[in-house]
Amino acid sequence: MRAAIFRNGEIVVDRMAGPKPGPGQVLVKTLACGICGSDLHARQHAPRMVEMARKTGRPPMDLSRDVVFGHEFCCEIVDYGPGAARKLKPGTHVCSLPALLTPEGIKGIGYSNDFVGGYAEQMLLSEPLLLEVPNGLAPEHAALTEPLAVGVHAVAKANIRGGEVPLVIGCGPVGLAVIAALKIKGLHPIVAADYSPARRALAAKLGADIVVDPRVSQPYATWAEHAQMSEAEKAARPPLQAVLPALKPAIIFECVGVPGLLQQVFEGAPRDARIVVVGVCMESDRNEPMLGIMKELNVQYVLGYTPEEFSASLRLIAEGQVDAAAMVTEEVGIDGVAKAFADLANPETHTKIIVQPWR
Amino acid sequence: MRAAIFRNGEIVVDRMAGPKPGPGQVLVKTLACGICGSDLHARQHAPRMVEMARKTGRPPMDLSRDVVFGHEFCCEIVDYGPGAARKLKPGTHVCSLPALLTPEGIKGIGYSNDFVGGYAEQMLLSEPLLLEVPNGLAPEHAALTEPLAVGVHAVAKANIRGGEVPLVIGCGPVGLAVIAALKIKGLHPIVAADYSPARRALAAKLGADIVVDPRVSQPYATWAEHAQMSEAEKAARPPLQAVLPALKPAIIFECVGVPGLLQQVFEGAPRDARIVVVGVCMESDRNEPMLGIMKELNVQYVLGYTPEEFSASLRLIAEGQVDAAAMVTEEVGIDGVAKAFADLANPETHTKIIVQPWR
Repeated sequence: MRAAIFRNGEIVVDRMAGPKPGPGQVLVKTLACGICGSDLHARQHAPRMVEMARKTGRPPMDLSRDVVFGHEFCCEIVDYGPGAARKLKPGTHVCSLPALLTPEGIKGIGYSNDFVGGYAEQMLLSEPLLLEVPNGLAPEHAALTEPLAVGVHAVAKANIRGGEVPLVIGCGPVGLAVIAALKIKGLHPIVAADYSPARRALAAKLGADIVVDPRVSQPYATWAEHAQMSEAEKAARPPLQAVLPALKPAIIFECVGVPGLLQQVFEGAPRDARIVVVGVCMESDRNEPMLGIMKELNVQYVLGYTPEEFSASLRLIAEGQVDAAAMVTEEVGIDGVAKAFADLANPETHTKIIVQPWR
Repeated sequence: MRAAIFRNGEIVVDRMAGPKPGPGQVLVKTLACGICGSDLHARQHAPRMVEMARKTGRPPMDLSRDVVFGHEFCCEIVDYGPGAARKLKPGTHVCSLPALLTPEGIKGIGYSNDFVGGYAEQMLLSEPLLLEVPNGLAPEHAALTEPLAVGVHAVAKANIRGGEVPLVIGCGPVGLAVIAALKIKGLHPIVAADYSPARRALAAKLGADIVVDPRVSQPYATWAEHAQMSEAEKAARPPLQAVLPALKPAIIFECVGVPGLLQQVFEGAPRDARIVVVGVCMESDRNEPMLGIMKELNVQYVLGYTPEEFSASLRLIAEGQVDAAAMVTEEVGIDGVAKAFADLANPETHTKIIVQPWR
């Protein structure tokens, strides 16, 4: 089969052996697979990713061997391996967590030498993880389940009690997913900041109530304008707190993931802010703990999602509660993957590029 | 009056004008005042402290003028300023939050050019903040209210749900206060680590169930030995979590406060650990956000305490629920403050030194 392969630090197109389904496995045809910011990171910082996997006890990629990225996919069932229950017929469109259940434990799909990801014509999935795509949803939109689940999970981990005012820093696919998940949660106003006009427009489309261009106004100042306590909330505060600024609780979603960003958040955040780190910063980072201390900040790092959050995300898209289509800016075949990686650097042109291996 | 004054980066003994109580203020004789790690930090990193105060919108110290440190005090009422309610008689022993209520807002005591701290013979307090010392408690022990309140607050901010196993990194006064507060909370086993045998002995005395010498065994490995889930807890986990290590939730208290320490915690912490940063690291620090992300860590920075936590801490000492006396390793007069600052560098000799200005 044909695949866009990560080899020697580059994305190259080549032929490789098609996968054979083992016990409990499903052979599927990959219909659509989104390109994730993590894939761009992985291509740029692969040795660092290997080092981090080792440090956290996960099996690292062997960079001397081929890897096929792609973990945001929608597929069509082709065939089953031995011993399968075959609940869904061949031809059914399915999504799945990017993972395989094996006798040796759960193995990730997308950054593995052993299991190809979605930038190939075919791949293997695990039958118990299959989710049927409902409502005749297009594969290109069903493939957005995974990135939306990242936002749904980040908002769940923010431990929202009601009454907070959220601020989303960065409106790339991760920030947009967070905005969509916040809208579902009913938390308003949602304040979102990005330097790109195209991304600010998308943020507004997906649910941001106030969008900020950091070149024009300071995101934290804009946030504060929209986070003023009501008179009743002011009156309910203990006497010694009455001297503090009368602001509602802040939840700040860091959706950029570059060094120095968290320090910026520490500088801008109001007292007692909860910060959810959704952006994946692959490099070592520096910040001033004293700012965290003096403001009693809370930082929640997040990764991935639960199986429940994943299947809920597919439903949200299929039921039209999240306008997933708005995020897709281009569709390419396997031959277009390398260029798409380069093109994604420009936020004005692209948000989410979908790979259609059979295109 | 005589005072140990922070002047030109050093602690010097000199005479200065005694304070005069204004409206609502109380003139007190300082009976006992603990030397806090923050005072040592402040002497060493005063310009940095000024920079941080500016960044967080607090009035910074003017380092060209005198400052009298000391914010862990027990005092005797001498006289009242105009318009006071005079509920407590002169001669009464009192504690207070290290703060003054002024018409311009709350002003801190201990790092201020305008209000002297506890390393002087007399100081000013605010009448509404006075807490009478109960049970004939010795001033040297009542002065430990403030550091204990730091531990009580840190444990409160840890948001304990029950079932967690705490790990305390560093058993200086802050770590010991955390251990005492955890013991009150009834959370067991309490695991605590420190390189110093003297401090490990104190940790055990104040409530640590397991003390670890990091030279002999890895604190996180020892923690894991004591945090194994019961068979019932294992069975109650969702299927996809059954592949993860069967450990109870971790709450790690970082009570050291030097650069690099948080990165060590990130490396050692188990998945989903909650980290409470109680140690005050005054310098810029570096860590690897990827470790936080891959383990979904939560970091809660804390500072200070509420008025309720402060008064509860005084009661805990007065009722003998916390063995405060165990922490005091020396008592000195004003002339002994400079040497005490130097002596506190040796954890084998000292934990808490109390200044008795009238000694």
